Amino acid sequence: MYIEVIPSAQSHYQGSLENKIAIVIDVFRATSTMATALANGAAALIPAASVEEALARKRENPEALLGGERQAVLIEGFDLGNSPDEYTVEKVKGKKVIITTTNGTMAIKAAAPAEKVRMLSFLNMDSVVRKVDQEIRECPGIDGIIIVCSGTEERFDLPDTLCAGMFIEQFGRGINVNDLGLAAQMLYNSSKPNLLETLKNTEHGQVLITLGFQKDVEYCSAVNRLSVVPVLRNGEIVWREDR
Amino acid sequence: MYIEVIPSAQSHYQGSLENKIAIVIDVFRATSTMATALANGAAALIPAASVEEALARKRENPEALLGGERQAVLIEGFDLGNSPDEYTVEKVKGKKVIITTTNGTMAIKAAAPAEKVRMLSFLNMDSVVRKVDQEIRECPGIDGIIIVCSGTEERFDLPDTLCAGMFIEQFGRGINVNDLGLAAQMLYNSSKPNLLETLKNTEHGQVLITLGFQKDVEYCSAVNRLSVVPVLRNGEIVWREDR
Repeated sequence: MYIEVIPSAQSHYQGSLENKIAIVIDVFRATSTMATALANGAAALIPAASVEEALARKRENPEALLGGERQAVLIEGFDLGNSPDEYTVEKVKGKKVIITTTNGTMAIKAAAPAEKVRMLSFLNMDSVVRKVDQEIRECPGIDGIIIVCSGTEERFDLPDTLCAGMFIEQFGRGINVNDLGLAAQMLYNSSKPNLLETLKNTEHGQVLITLGFQKDVEYCSAVNRLSVVPVLRNGEIVWREDR
Repeated sequence: MYIEVIPSAQSHYQGSLENKIAIVIDVFRATSTMATALANGAAALIPAASVEEALARKRENPEALLGGERQAVLIEGFDLGNSPDEYTVEKVKGKKVIITTTNGTMAIKAAAPAEKVRMLSFLNMDSVVRKVDQEIRECPGIDGIIIVCSGTEERFDLPDTLCAGMFIEQFGRGINVNDLGLAAQMLYNSSKPNLLETLKNTEHGQVLITLGFQKDVEYCSAVNRLSVVPVLRNGEIVWREDR
């Protein structure tokens, strides 16, 4: 099994997404927030690439909530920001949330042509590893995994890369990786003893801490707190799937 | 001092190249070959972005040699490939070499607007570190360093990133780095005990070994073998500069 890691939604990748499982990572904070929202009972998340698209989807789904961020803060007129802290049972249970973030929703859109798309964060690492492993065993047509790090405005993002490295490390045996996958694995292994401190010292970690989101940085750095596997189905992100 | 590492010539960087020292890395093999050619007495290297541009520069410099590669091998009609092994004293002493490679010469062109451009490889690490350190002390106008990894066709390249990490590690005190710089430093530190093995196992290392260039992989992985500091001046790469 070949695992290719790409550093941002806009990055070149080898081959095509056909017959691939795409795993999208945006540790700070989109995929962590999505896992939290679904774990807290949200019916679905509808990713929108822009504020305009989010508002258009809201007109089609007037009962849905609007969530997301630009420059890490709440968008004017939106119900929710991008902090997992806001996606409580009280607010999201049974509801759809239209969500647009600077990098994460772009990465999901880029990954959409893949056979299967799953959203990964540290929070739901083990569940995604096991689900993807099972899917590969059950679907002989799957011939590779592409891990799409959301990056930071098209630039390399260390939190996403560390999360990719942990996935590769746990996924284990019988795999080949590209250079960024090898680097991700090395980075994860060398920062495993002090993962939280490493994540805090990244560019994105520092921005969030400066903006008062230290609690989010700590929450999103916690491993295996949620058992949800968010999957993309018909343009919506839901918990599990039947296909 | 802020050091930003970008993964390929085409990558987004923050801010501008003005008042910056740009350091271009293409371990396998362009910047290693350039250092070797200058150390062996080449008068200058003229980087060309394409085979067409190389031939155009040849018409302006009929006595110059033509060197470079596409898909790691010699270009038809060229005098030299991209193996440092070919750039011997006998062949290059006193001569200019027009050189075009898949990734390295693109990165040099991208870096050209910077205040100063220096070419780095493991071979001339210590000399470049000391030269850049001196230039920053002598030129108070310099306000940052950008390290341009050449990458592999716009993708992340581990050998270039390890070389960037070694530069940052040696450059040392009083610096801030972007996430890729931090990752590069972590990667270098974790692979320092077995640098050659790590480099051999990269995508680019494996391609070169498959093509019969294992000797080049070993040569380009050697640290501090050359004291040359290749600098870009008026579109040509020469040893040292006066400006």
